[in-house]
Amino acid sequence: MIHAGLAGATGYVGVELLRLLRGHPGVQVTALSADSTAGRPMEALYGHLAGLIDQAPGPTTAAAFEGCDVVLMALPHGASAALAGEMLDAGIRVIDLGADFRLKDARSFERWYEVEHPRQDLLPQAVYGLPELYRDRIRGARLVANPGCYPTSAALALAPLVKNGMADLDFLVLDSKSGLSGAGRKTSLFSHFCEADGSVAAYAVAGQHRHTPELEQTLSDLAGRPVRVTFTPHLVPMKRGIMTTAYTRTPIQDLSPLYEDFYRDEPFVQVRSETLPATGHVTGSNRCHVAPRFDARTGRATVVSVIDNLVKGAAGQAIQNLNLMFGMDETAGLDLVPVYP
Amino acid sequence: MIHAGLAGATGYVGVELLRLLRGHPGVQVTALSADSTAGRPMEALYGHLAGLIDQAPGPTTAAAFEGCDVVLMALPHGASAALAGEMLDAGIRVIDLGADFRLKDARSFERWYEVEHPRQDLLPQAVYGLPELYRDRIRGARLVANPGCYPTSAALALAPLVKNGMADLDFLVLDSKSGLSGAGRKTSLFSHFCEADGSVAAYAVAGQHRHTPELEQTLSDLAGRPVRVTFTPHLVPMKRGIMTTAYTRTPIQDLSPLYEDFYRDEPFVQVRSETLPATGHVTGSNRCHVAPRFDARTGRATVVSVIDNLVKGAAGQAIQNLNLMFGMDETAGLDLVPVYP
Amino acid sequence: MIHAGLAGATGYVGVELLRLLRGHPGVQVTALSADSTAGRPMEALYGHLAGLIDQAPGPTTAAAFEGCDVVLMALPHGASAALAGEMLDAGIRVIDLGADFRLKDARSFERWYEVEHPRQDLLPQAVYGLPELYRDRIRGARLVANPGCYPTSAALALAPLVKNGMADLDFLVLDSKSGLSGAGRKTSLFSHFCEADGSVAAYAVAGQHRHTPELEQTLSDLAGRPVRVTFTPHLVPMKRGIMTTAYTRTPIQDLSPLYEDFYRDEPFVQVRSETLPATGHVTGSNRCHVAPRFDARTGRATVVSVIDNLVKGAAGQAIQNLNLMFGMDETAGLDLVPVYP
Amino acid sequence: MIHAGLAGATGYVGVELLRLLRGHPGVQVTALSADSTAGRPMEALYGHLAGLIDQAPGPTTAAAFEGCDVVLMALPHGASAALAGEMLDAGIRVIDLGADFRLKDARSFERWYEVEHPRQDLLPQAVYGLPELYRDRIRGARLVANPGCYPTSAALALAPLVKNGMADLDFLVLDSKSGLSGAGRKTSLFSHFCEADGSVAAYAVAGQHRHTPELEQTLSDLAGRPVRVTFTPHLVPMKRGIMTTAYTRTPIQDLSPLYEDFYRDEPFVQVRSETLPATGHVTGSNRCHVAPRFDARTGRATVVSVIDNLVKGAAGQAIQNLNLMFGMDETAGLDLVPVYP
Repeated sequence: MIHAGLAGATGYVGVELLRLLRGHPGVQVTALSADSTAGRPMEALYGHLAGLIDQAPGPTTAAAFEGCDVVLMALPHGASAALAGEMLDAGIRVIDLGADFRLKDARSFERWYEVEHPRQDLLPQAVYGLPELYRDRIRGARLVANPGCYPTSAALALAPLVKNGMADLDFLVLDSKSGLSGAGRKTSLFSHFCEADGSVAAYAVAGQHRHTPELEQTLSDLAGRPVRVTFTPHLVPMKRGIMTTAYTRTPIQDLSPLYEDFYRDEPFVQVRSETLPATGHVTGSNRCHVAPRFDARTGRATVVSVIDNLVKGAAGQAIQNLNLMFGMDETAGLDLVPVYP
Repeated sequence: MIHAGLAGATGYVGVELLRLLRGHPGVQVTALSADSTAGRPMEALYGHLAGLIDQAPGPTTAAAFEGCDVVLMALPHGASAALAGEMLDAGIRVIDLGADFRLKDARSFERWYEVEHPRQDLLPQAVYGLPELYRDRIRGARLVANPGCYPTSAALALAPLVKNGMADLDFLVLDSKSGLSGAGRKTSLFSHFCEADGSVAAYAVAGQHRHTPELEQTLSDLAGRPVRVTFTPHLVPMKRGIMTTAYTRTPIQDLSPLYEDFYRDEPFVQVRSETLPATGHVTGSNRCHVAPRFDARTGRATVVSVIDNLVKGAAGQAIQNLNLMFGMDETAGLDLVPVYP
Repeated sequence: MIHAGLAGATGYVGVELLRLLRGHPGVQVTALSADSTAGRPMEALYGHLAGLIDQAPGPTTAAAFEGCDVVLMALPHGASAALAGEMLDAGIRVIDLGADFRLKDARSFERWYEVEHPRQDLLPQAVYGLPELYRDRIRGARLVANPGCYPTSAALALAPLVKNGMADLDFLVLDSKSGLSGAGRKTSLFSHFCEADGSVAAYAVAGQHRHTPELEQTLSDLAGRPVRVTFTPHLVPMKRGIMTTAYTRTPIQDLSPLYEDFYRDEPFVQVRSETLPATGHVTGSNRCHVAPRFDARTGRATVVSVIDNLVKGAAGQAIQNLNLMFGMDETAGLDLVPVYP
Repeated sequence: MIHAGLAGATGYVGVELLRLLRGHPGVQVTALSADSTAGRPMEALYGHLAGLIDQAPGPTTAAAFEGCDVVLMALPHGASAALAGEMLDAGIRVIDLGADFRLKDARSFERWYEVEHPRQDLLPQAVYGLPELYRDRIRGARLVANPGCYPTSAALALAPLVKNGMADLDFLVLDSKSGLSGAGRKTSLFSHFCEADGSVAAYAVAGQHRHTPELEQTLSDLAGRPVRVTFTPHLVPMKRGIMTTAYTRTPIQDLSPLYEDFYRDEPFVQVRSETLPATGHVTGSNRCHVAPRFDARTGRATVVSVIDNLVKGAAGQAIQNLNLMFGMDETAGLDLVPVYP
């Protein structure tokens, strides 16, 4: 039985980890931490946990995780790195669900996140935890950087084309639509019900979003040369889910075989060749549906991918990484049918 | 391993049974049936099942369920009774998620449902499957009538007061708010997105809803004398969930101890004494939260209960009944944290 | 042309006043004030006003409204009373959309709102601005207390029965369902999109809500003796709308004629005798639909009423009052077809 | 006073025309027609019209519109053309809100709509009713083809760039997000509440949507040479609104002046240079907000436009065209503040 600690257990990603790990046969959550909410019973914070989680989270300190085999960190960017270092020094493995170890280049991190990187010495050992692309490295990792939600959906949409040299790298447009849980539980005007409901909003338009360098890093790695993309995130009036609609030029017309081949053995990626995905098709599950389509009129491909941002885009992918790191069945705790409707 | 058949597998309750039973350690679904959609792959009907359910449902016939230990039937009212009889004759136990066996009085069924009862000879052996009230009878049952969603939420809200003689039986008002999945997958104008979104609608006002006699039957049984209630169902723009706000007069002021005592050993009922429940607190789970409150100004009690209509109000309760009928742990397959947010 | 000032123009009620008054043939908005947001252009606060409102609101002071004929105040409770006094002294009429002048009894105000009443000397001249009940008094008023949203929907649901002595005053239950705009634009956890969407929540259960004494005051006035009610507000995942489902015992069976007679000449109240109302039927309009139904099984009436909380429950009713106060056509600026869907 | 007839008055566009025309000072609706719902009172079809529209729509025949000055047709494609011909012969002007006269090339119509064009002889006189681009032609028109909702939002997003030769015509990607009212009132599985809520769906991906040739026709006309675009429509869980996110390469960096200049005198187009639009910013109004942004990293422009699909995308634009055709103030009946929130 793996003993896992959760740092930042009282955000939406934290309680999603609690939900998923309760059904995991090989992992026991032995430590919970929070910040401003530390010390309050989970039930007072989350009505849905009434009667289910007795443990009140303590403050986020290194001592809180003594005895853990692994700590999953769902903390604001800049807050994970120092704690991660302490954990690694103590022989505890780390899965960071924040942004601190996602970008290989510390200068890029500092430019996009506008803070100094607290532990750039750890960057070389950090493995980018997208199992469909980097499974082998994850297996041996002690520090995994769990990918962002948008980059996960974007990478899985384009990887087969880019990896096979079939995408025009000068024509990459990624248009993403996200539910509001991606913005977390902290209140703000744009996530106020009356502002968000019944409305679609674009934000961070024209290369302003911090996930841009992350998804360019992955696509560049797949392409073998630096690529630039146009990426636009949108907020859609729903709680969970991300759809990325990806556009590129391509010389091949028959995209389904390419995708089916690429994802043949993936337990969580489903190629949709006949029908089109909707974000509701993956809610509550670690699954990603990908639908590649070719338009002969234009010579361009449109690829639609969907994930649940809190699962494959965060907590579920972290558990998938945990399973790989500890040699367990990759699907342990994650063999879930999506909640529908 | 129990072999279960699902009759009516392609409605919302059917696919919820598939979702929940996939995680059940002691049950295997060995037969699926449907009606108009029989023969089509599940993936063509439900995108979320792509890659998860290979079996295409066949037509709903007795032969389809040969070899099953139990059949769960999610069929329109009037359609279960005949099939149920055939199953019982073949030694197969039945859990009927429809209305055919809920009312003990066939004339009452015929008055409210406006069809002749196809098998009233089976009524005496049918057990009303609300485990919190009738657990012992369910254990020995061969035919269980799974309760309606509104009656489940109403009965759990009022049972402690009524059973203990603490409710004024001449002052029982039940105001329920339901998500739209209760109306099923068949399209209709009132469940058309643009008609339902952003709007609350009352329907079957003033004693018109077919669940009225069912909840009166349960409350009468608890009270030991016939009771009449005023019950109003409402449709709320959400997919899942039922809240029932119940009103009565009561002589006792301190309601929490009464409720906590009544539900002390119940694995799925949570009394909320400090904070108030919302339907979102139980989504995707078999849980029921109940919050009793007393108003000293008026001498009246207001009790708020919430369930997920597709789980505790349908598929989950059916599995809870199945577990009891087959001597398994009552929570097997149902030990789920609600999906939040 | 009446010159109107808006105090508190940057909340949801304030911008709804701006929307409705733009179409009013006899009123011009000549002064806008705000508090924390004073000085910022409306477009920076509300994208939907870009290009429509050039005026930036100033601070809320008496001087700001010099030259106005009337000031409409949409301020937090306790904040209107002092300003209202200054306005009245300056010969400017006041419509207060807040709670300060709704309760005739200052002690009741202080008990429920937990602040001292700043200007109880003004209470005698304040007229409760529910035109369907108090039209004549409003015509001559210099200070109108615009009713709360819940009390408006509740009073219109029950007035015909209570006024005619046809309601059992010991059996009055009001179950209301509201959209979230009633809670205003200030962010809070319960109105955070991910907390509110897909969920119904009860709050202020068992006589805790501040609108309770207000609606009891109106019903007591209609009944000619003090009455107590049980009132429960609920939050429903929608932006606008309130439905009140009212329950009472009644000796008469044929309710429609009573209601149609009572509301015969009302321009904004529609009795629904054939079909049932939904909140979506009145969105964006000053209309109220009321559907009374009798249940012969129980001898009880269920009456369903719907309004748009921001219009008939706030801004629209204020303009209706303004029209009456200034001798204009009562429907001026309010002859709007609801926005549907 | 212009006498207007509405053919197809009982769909969502029809009742939106009724809403808007009620507030129009120079137009009176003198004839209503419907098809399957003809003869039923509007109140039975639409609860929100109870007490507002007494007229029951008759069947859709030429005789129904005798005496009208203009007929607005909201009919399924293929159904308008014959009636339009009869109207024109009778000297009645026509605004067709359907697709029959939008494409100049009858073969293109037949290829995309898969029906023979019933009256291609009328195509030469049909004017494409996008006032911001074709105002002068509309003024003299007797037959106006009211644009589709997607093409309206797309054309207004890109017109300033394309018209000025500042868009790379080999890099035009249009990603649109629509509310569900665009799909009309006819029930279907994809617009069933439980299928649509909480989910984003892509459809008609990779050049399958019928609006593709229409928006290419407009952009080609602006560019002075044939252009091809990649267009993807998406369904978002909201009732009204379309956002189009348009992508192109451009040599100019400072886009706002270009857009502000292009739309300087437009009463309904608002350039958003500071803040970004959301569809909720235009709900219920004829307004279009457009926000052009340049990304120096990539040399590409992202332009976001929003409209209310039922107003600027249908009924409101039709009235704008009507105003132009009859020499009235272009904003008559349309000077509305959006409904917010």
